[in-house]
Amino acid sequence: MLMGLDIGATKILGVVASAQGEVLGSVRVASPSGGDQVVAAAADVVAELRAAAGDRTTGVIGVGIPGLVDVAHGTVRHAVNLGVADGYPFSARLGAAVGTAVVLDNDANAAALGAAALLGLDDLGYLSLGTGLAAALVLEGRLRRGAQNAAGEIGHIPVDPAGPRCECGQVGCLETMASGSALAALWPSGSGQPAGQALFDAAAAGDADAVAVRDRFAARVADAVRLVALTVDPAVVVLGGGVAQVGDRLRVAVAHALAEQAAASPFLRSLDLPGRLRLAPLDVPVAALGAALLGKPS
Amino acid sequence: MLMGLDIGATKILGVVASAQGEVLGSVRVASPSGGDQVVAAAADVVAELRAAAGDRTTGVIGVGIPGLVDVAHGTVRHAVNLGVADGYPFSARLGAAVGTAVVLDNDANAAALGAAALLGLDDLGYLSLGTGLAAALVLEGRLRRGAQNAAGEIGHIPVDPAGPRCECGQVGCLETMASGSALAALWPSGSGQPAGQALFDAAAAGDADAVAVRDRFAARVADAVRLVALTVDPAVVVLGGGVAQVGDRLRVAVAHALAEQAAASPFLRSLDLPGRLRLAPLDVPVAALGAALLGKPS
Repeated sequence: MLMGLDIGATKILGVVASAQGEVLGSVRVASPSGGDQVVAAAADVVAELRAAAGDRTTGVIGVGIPGLVDVAHGTVRHAVNLGVADGYPFSARLGAAVGTAVVLDNDANAAALGAAALLGLDDLGYLSLGTGLAAALVLEGRLRRGAQNAAGEIGHIPVDPAGPRCECGQVGCLETMASGSALAALWPSGSGQPAGQALFDAAAAGDADAVAVRDRFAARVADAVRLVALTVDPAVVVLGGGVAQVGDRLRVAVAHALAEQAAASPFLRSLDLPGRLRLAPLDVPVAALGAALLGKPS
Repeated sequence: MLMGLDIGATKILGVVASAQGEVLGSVRVASPSGGDQVVAAAADVVAELRAAAGDRTTGVIGVGIPGLVDVAHGTVRHAVNLGVADGYPFSARLGAAVGTAVVLDNDANAAALGAAALLGLDDLGYLSLGTGLAAALVLEGRLRRGAQNAAGEIGHIPVDPAGPRCECGQVGCLETMASGSALAALWPSGSGQPAGQALFDAAAAGDADAVAVRDRFAARVADAVRLVALTVDPAVVVLGGGVAQVGDRLRVAVAHALAEQAAASPFLRSLDLPGRLRLAPLDVPVAALGAALLGKPS
């Protein structure tokens, strides 16, 4: 059996999966802050998963984490939301704590691998629409991590000089307009319901403001899709991350925006971006499953 | 010996090269318009090259051409500047005319291969700053052409909603601000001198307007570099195409703009984009040489 952990800014989700990619069990805990604290919480998740699985998972454990991950050294940079210091020896510490090898990768990379396996694809761009915006690329069957592990960091490409300032220090970054936090800022949900759900429900009920906000947000996600398509041209672009939990209506809204963008451009139209858009599976934790697949003997 | 042709909107440049990538001879003619006309002119170039080389080049001939090239079928789409119709059987027609197999690829792809060979690199993004703007990607030693042969078409990614309308039908495309034609529009050269040369000379001579225009243009090229770096993260980005003929001062100006963009962003600064910028070799026709390498037995 395989074991994978998806470590995010708010939660750590661990799964046990079969070699065929079927999720057999999962454990979820809140994310603490700080390298040692995250390692300890992750080790607890591993122990719980092992207990539930009867301790049969002794292979390499795969872990996805936000930031620029050096896979060879098992370290991460810019994992600011988790308070993990640049160069903190994450894989080594977690490996020592759980007594088995750990392979660390970027969380969007893990999710892309999971989505590729579940959807049966070998060439795709994965858009992680979570708190932030990141992409991951599986090109002709191989993860493209990049020379400095920064492939897919499209959230920090500026696309509007008149846009808002980004936390990264630049202005008008795609992430400030096409991410879960951007959506929450556009449509604050008072109800405790996720902002995406509230927005898409209100739009479906005919609220004109909600329709306008939804379409504006979908157009910015379409910008991200077009950017990935015109740079690496993956066969398929998969929409994932927390925002994708609103379901297929997200894909429909973004496909509509892509068709509008292409209306005046025969060149764009010929690339059929709306037809190449997919939604990540909603009922499976794709990032944790993809992390588990990272540890699979090849 | 190898033979390669770089077919552009204004000229066809053919070279004969050694298997080691040394250019042994070249022929240049003006580009006609229309599929049959371009094939006939290309066949003339092949005949001249063969005559000069004493007819010893009988292997596969590589050809680079602007547009979305289907390498398997030897056809091209969107080669609008050459008047070649979508789906025109270019490889088959040229192959029949010259009596040997022809392999067709996108001209920026060919140039990227040429630059990779000349600079000894196996992971690079190549920016072709010609009439238009296109990129090409050699990732871990392999050309990334894309699922629909559209990888590297970054010229048609909009980066400013307030920007000019692009010929492709969209608004604010990168190509309208970071290409040879954008530069010529910013700094019309009355002298017959290339616009880039005139602009960089005037800026070097202290003309304040020229300095401002040069820096604005360099900032838009820096946008293109950053976009490629944050999407696929190649080890090196190479500046090529006609605009690069102004020499290393282009690299210096763009590196300066990249450093300015990163000044407010620790994240960008950590990626050291200025230090990863290179200029394509000026004294070698990189696209024609890369085309020749396309035909090299592997």
